[in-house]
Amino acid sequence: MDAHLIAVGSELLQGFPDTNTGWLAERLGRIGIRVRQISLVGDEEAGIAALVSDGLRRADLVILTGGLGPTEDDRTRAALSRALGEPLEPDARMAERIEEWLRGRGRTPDDDQLRQALRPRGAEFLENRRGIAPGLVVRTRSALLFAVPGVPAEMKEMFDSCVEPVLRSAGGPVLLRRVLKVAGRTESSVDRQIRDLYATPNAELTILARSTGIELVLRVEGATRGDAASRLQTLDEEISARLADDLFGRDDDTLASVVGAALGARASTLATAESCTAGLLAATLTEVPGASAWYRGGLVTYANDLKNALAGVALETLSRSGAVSAETARELARGARERLGADYGIGITGIAGPTGGTPDKPVGLVYVAVADARGIVDFRLLLPGDRDLVRRRAVSLALDRLRRRILGPP
Amino acid sequence: MDAHLIAVGSELLQGFPDTNTGWLAERLGRIGIRVRQISLVGDEEAGIAALVSDGLRRADLVILTGGLGPTEDDRTRAALSRALGEPLEPDARMAERIEEWLRGRGRTPDDDQLRQALRPRGAEFLENRRGIAPGLVVRTRSALLFAVPGVPAEMKEMFDSCVEPVLRSAGGPVLLRRVLKVAGRTESSVDRQIRDLYATPNAELTILARSTGIELVLRVEGATRGDAASRLQTLDEEISARLADDLFGRDDDTLASVVGAALGARASTLATAESCTAGLLAATLTEVPGASAWYRGGLVTYANDLKNALAGVALETLSRSGAVSAETARELARGARERLGADYGIGITGIAGPTGGTPDKPVGLVYVAVADARGIVDFRLLLPGDRDLVRRRAVSLALDRLRRRILGPP
Repeated sequence: MDAHLIAVGSELLQGFPDTNTGWLAERLGRIGIRVRQISLVGDEEAGIAALVSDGLRRADLVILTGGLGPTEDDRTRAALSRALGEPLEPDARMAERIEEWLRGRGRTPDDDQLRQALRPRGAEFLENRRGIAPGLVVRTRSALLFAVPGVPAEMKEMFDSCVEPVLRSAGGPVLLRRVLKVAGRTESSVDRQIRDLYATPNAELTILARSTGIELVLRVEGATRGDAASRLQTLDEEISARLADDLFGRDDDTLASVVGAALGARASTLATAESCTAGLLAATLTEVPGASAWYRGGLVTYANDLKNALAGVALETLSRSGAVSAETARELARGARERLGADYGIGITGIAGPTGGTPDKPVGLVYVAVADARGIVDFRLLLPGDRDLVRRRAVSLALDRLRRRILGPP
Repeated sequence: MDAHLIAVGSELLQGFPDTNTGWLAERLGRIGIRVRQISLVGDEEAGIAALVSDGLRRADLVILTGGLGPTEDDRTRAALSRALGEPLEPDARMAERIEEWLRGRGRTPDDDQLRQALRPRGAEFLENRRGIAPGLVVRTRSALLFAVPGVPAEMKEMFDSCVEPVLRSAGGPVLLRRVLKVAGRTESSVDRQIRDLYATPNAELTILARSTGIELVLRVEGATRGDAASRLQTLDEEISARLADDLFGRDDDTLASVVGAALGARASTLATAESCTAGLLAATLTEVPGASAWYRGGLVTYANDLKNALAGVALETLSRSGAVSAETARELARGARERLGADYGIGITGIAGPTGGTPDKPVGLVYVAVADARGIVDFRLLLPGDRDLVRRRAVSLALDRLRRRILGPP
């Protein structure tokens, strides 16, 4: 089954991020539906209608989000009427329901609100359990069309309770998806190692390079769910064996969540001391709910005198080796571990740019050190990209080095 | 002039973010071209061709990014040929150029690389100064079509040097765009205050709510650049007068850059002490290049004993008022200021969730305090949203409170 997704809203053409279509694509992928096209369009009847017509002609499934509310801006119902060639008709039961919903909240229904009870002839309503605007479903000869609200919470609830059950019952082959996550490797080296698997029958393998590492998206088709699951497992095992401990997680795992789980399992704790990343490592670690079980805290030693005062980096180290050096990173890691009373300490120092680089120490040069009861190890990184990317990559690589240290041989 | 943007790449349908179309929409907006539709499509000839045909029929301008490289996956040239009904023809001069480019880098040209010298009959090449794959431009009877690379650096350079000059010379009314940035206000309260300006002739005003505050996007049309600029200035001044110091910046300004500029202008410095945001405030401040001129560093006191040991929060305060309290925020702010030797200190403590809330202190409760030579002020926030949103909003609101303290009366 092939799908077109349409997100309606003029703000989406003005840099306001559309989060709905990505979520829908991911959820559709899980039940074997492939998204062929995603379009963003403003609150204009003609533009929306044109995309709906295209979708109904070219895809089996069209899901449209947004433009279902009560205001003048909400043009989806009129656009569907135009694309389908069916007039808008009021639905008395839905009008009653909207009146009831509003009165229950002490509001008086007006004509604008009651416009939401209109539907193109032949369309059915979908219940909105999180808001007022109902969704719509239309079956044409060749395709299925859903219109759901643009408010993410309403959209998601309606997809789960009204859209997905219909799509699942439509049958067809089952497609399963899994993301394998890889750290400390380049895209091309991973590509070389798994290239022969691209030709696996009924499977599709995509490599994505992100600032957080490499992701392998596995999509496997089977006649039944069990069939697809067993093919997916075989492919996962083959790739896992090849990538060994460069593979750090699957699906919702992040480097921080994997580090946190490893620390939690060992009842160990962590502290950080950061210069160039200046809190980004701490913030990334604490994105994990429950991080307080294993993360103690950190030092942001941006000014050089604070590297000494807060983390205990020797003044002699700073003057001899410089603030950006393996020695300083090591003393930051040791200082974090000792002064914040943690089992693991991690230190980061580097030059994020855009200025501050020299021929000896260019922008992108970052040192990372990890301290634990066994001693201190350090790593030199030379990272491409702008200030933001250098900082994000430094955090990812630091987390990966820490992960390997925690999970590695004692 | 109305534009359709098309981004080509199967990864874009799999959650890999498309950054090109947003950038293009913003740049086109500045020269008065309105984007009517943005579509993302996989590396499939038929899908790309269909979107190109739609665009040429419905818009004056089509800009397509991606799919111009040398691999099997790169289907844009073939799709253009199909959509235009013009055969692909080799261009001898471009082939020579590609061979030269590759030999200059010690590589041997192969058939794949030379495929980049093909163009649909009637199309002209656009020079790629950052890579190999040339762009293409085609003029049909009713529209202008550009195909540019998907690699952002190559796309941007080509837009600046080959696309924008052509579009500017096309003439027509001038449209100017400016973003006004507002902090510490809700979307609806801003809306109420400027609602009457929505009807300003030849102007369009859009409100966007982001986690970093409210943005007002102003678009003003004029017969000439001077005309548009003066109308834009009038509208800006009217809104600025109404919003007063809730308006904190324009276009590329961020709360952190505005705080940094204010500190820099006063030769003042800042230090932070964070609990629930755990480094996110420090990381946000240091997104600003040159932050080391005014940001000294910070403490991430995630564990309660570190609030005492690192920031000097009294054990009695922690036991009497609790870690999440105005008192603790005040002592964090004072500790950051005094222990890190800064003119301003800021403290944040709160409950980001998803767990840890109580009836008295629910998830989303955050205290912020700002310390300076005049004393300490504190603020209580009750923030909606999930863990990530609570943390990001806490950082934005803390930055705004700090901004008002720095810029406010002495």
